[in-house]
Amino acid sequence: MGVNETVAKPLDRLAALLAHDMGAVDALIRTRMESRHAPRIPEVTAHLVGAGGKRLRPLLTIAAARLLGYEGTHHQLLAATVEFIHTATLLHDDVVDESRQRRGRPTANLLWDNKSSVLVGDYLFARSFQLMTETGNMRVMSILSNASAVIAEGEVLQLTAAQDLRTTEEIYLQVVRGKTAALFSAATEVGGVIAGGTDAQVQALYDYGDALGIAFQIVDDILDYSGTTETIGKNTGDDFRERKLTLPVIKAVAKADAEERAFWQRTIEKGDQQEGDLERAMAILGHHGAIDAARADALAWAARGRSALEALPEGEIRALLTELADFVVARVA
Amino acid sequence: MGVNETVAKPLDRLAALLAHDMGAVDALIRTRMESRHAPRIPEVTAHLVGAGGKRLRPLLTIAAARLLGYEGTHHQLLAATVEFIHTATLLHDDVVDESRQRRGRPTANLLWDNKSSVLVGDYLFARSFQLMTETGNMRVMSILSNASAVIAEGEVLQLTAAQDLRTTEEIYLQVVRGKTAALFSAATEVGGVIAGGTDAQVQALYDYGDALGIAFQIVDDILDYSGTTETIGKNTGDDFRERKLTLPVIKAVAKADAEERAFWQRTIEKGDQQEGDLERAMAILGHHGAIDAARADALAWAARGRSALEALPEGEIRALLTELADFVVARVA
Repeated sequence: MGVNETVAKPLDRLAALLAHDMGAVDALIRTRMESRHAPRIPEVTAHLVGAGGKRLRPLLTIAAARLLGYEGTHHQLLAATVEFIHTATLLHDDVVDESRQRRGRPTANLLWDNKSSVLVGDYLFARSFQLMTETGNMRVMSILSNASAVIAEGEVLQLTAAQDLRTTEEIYLQVVRGKTAALFSAATEVGGVIAGGTDAQVQALYDYGDALGIAFQIVDDILDYSGTTETIGKNTGDDFRERKLTLPVIKAVAKADAEERAFWQRTIEKGDQQEGDLERAMAILGHHGAIDAARADALAWAARGRSALEALPEGEIRALLTELADFVVARVA
Repeated sequence: MGVNETVAKPLDRLAALLAHDMGAVDALIRTRMESRHAPRIPEVTAHLVGAGGKRLRPLLTIAAARLLGYEGTHHQLLAATVEFIHTATLLHDDVVDESRQRRGRPTANLLWDNKSSVLVGDYLFARSFQLMTETGNMRVMSILSNASAVIAEGEVLQLTAAQDLRTTEEIYLQVVRGKTAALFSAATEVGGVIAGGTDAQVQALYDYGDALGIAFQIVDDILDYSGTTETIGKNTGDDFRERKLTLPVIKAVAKADAEERAFWQRTIEKGDQQEGDLERAMAILGHHGAIDAARADALAWAARGRSALEALPEGEIRALLTELADFVVARVA
C-alpha cells in the first residue's frame, strides 16, 4: 500500500503479513452469511461485518496457527467461526444495551429492529457452529462452545451486577473475562490447537489472548470516561448512562466519602441522573486517581500478555503480537 | 401410575416406556442449566423447562435411538441438546413476538426482561453445543448445527413474510419447516444416527420428524383461530394480532373477494385492527372452508409421518410413534 511499514499500526502490519489467510477468511464470512431464503440476514450481517470491523479476533486465530507453523486451511474456518460468534454477540449486546451507535454508525437494532438483531444473531451463532464442525476437531469445538457459554454467562452476570455498588474488582474481572477475554483467549487457543501445538504452547496462546482481552476491555472502560466520541466510535459516558460498574467506577466507589457515595447511589443505583452528573463523575474519578489506577491495571495485563508470548517461537508474528499488546493499551498509555 | 394405559395419551405412554432414559435426560438438563456465576440463568430456564413442558422433542430423540436398539447413553446428551435448543428458541421467540403468555403462564420476558431472555437463550444455545460435542459424533453435530441455522432462518423469513398477503403456501411451508419441523426432524434423525441406523432408517426417522413437526405447527395455527385459551395455553387470535400469514389465512386470502381482500389488507397488511375484527376473520375462514382445508393438510402430513415409520423395526415404540402422529392432529380432527 506504499505505507511506511515502520509506523503502520501492528494490527495492520499483522493483517498485511497474513493477508492471504485473511482474504480467505473474508471470503468464507461472505459466503456463509448468505441465506437462500431470508435476505434480511446478509443485510444485517453486512452492516456489522462489512465496515469498520478490525477483524482483530480472526486475525488472532490466524496468527496463532501460523506462529506454530500451521500449513493447513482449518484455521481459516476457525477464524470465521470466531468472527461470527463475535458478530452475533454484538447484535445481541446492542439489543440488551439498547445501543444506538457502534463503530460510529447507527446500530442494527436501530436501522432494522430488535427482532432482526436477535434472530440474525441466532443465525450467526448456528453458522459459527456449522463452521467449527467442519474442522472435525473435537477439542476446538469444545473450546469454542465453552467460550460461547462463558460469554453469555458473563453478559448475564453484568446484567445482574449492573447498578450494584457492591460489585468488586473480582466480579468485574469475571464479567470482563466473559464478555471480552473469553473470545480472545479462545481465538488464540484454537489457533494453537489446530496447529498441533504442545500443551505449553497452547497454554501460552490462551494466556496471551486472555491478558490481551482484559487489557482491551479495561481500556474501553477507561475511554468511556475520558475519550471522545471520535476516538471511541460511540458516545462518551454510555457506561455511566447505562449504570455499569466498570473498573474506574469500582475503584472510585471504594474510596468514596459519604457525599460521593450518595452521588453514586443516586446516579448508578437509582439511575436518577441529571445534567452535569457525567462531568461530576469524571471529576470524582480524576480526584481519586481511579482512571490512573485502571490504566496501571491495563498496562500490567498487557505486560502479562507480552511475557506469555516468550514461550512461543520467535519471529515476525511473535514480534507483531508483542507490539499488539502494547498497542491495545496505547490509547490510554 | 395405575392409569389405564389404553386410554392414556401416546406421549405419556411413550414417556412411561422410556422413563429411565427420560429421567437421565431430566437430570442432565438440570445439571447443565446451572451457572456458577449467574443465578439468573437457572431461574429463567427453570421457569420454562420446569413446568408444563411436554419434553416432546427429547422424547423423540430417545425413542428414535431405542427404536433402533441403541444401548448407549449418548442419545441422552442429544435429547438434552435438543431441549436446550428448543428452550433457547422459545426465549428468543417470546422476545421477538412480544408474547405475554406461554403454556398458560407469563413469559420470561414479562417476568424478568427482554435482556435476560436474549442472554439466557444465548447461554442455552452454547450449552446445547457443549452437550452435543460430548458425543464426539461429527454427523450429529453437523445435523444439529444445521437445524439451528434453519430454525433462525425460518424465524427471519417469518419476520419478513409477516404482514405480506403475497405469502404463498410454499413460503409458509418453508417458515414452518424452519420454526418447528427442523428441530423435530433433527431430533429423530440424530437418534437414528447415534444408534448407527442404516441410511434408509435414518431417512425414515427424518421424514417422520419432519411430517410430525409440520402437522404439529398447522394444528397450532388452526387452533389460534378456533381453539380456546384453556386448550392452547395462550390467547386465541395471537397470530391475527401479530399479523402472521398462517395457513388458514393464506387459504382464505387466495379465495377472497374484493371486500374480503380489503379486510385482510387493513387488518394484516396495515395492522389497523378494530373490535370485532378477529370474529370477522374467523367467519371468513369458516365461509371459505379455510380451517377445514388446513385440517386436511395436517391430517395428510400425519399420514405421511405414519407411513415413514413403516421402514423401521416393528414393536412398541414404533406403535406409539404411529399413535403420536394421530394424536398430534387429534386436537383438530
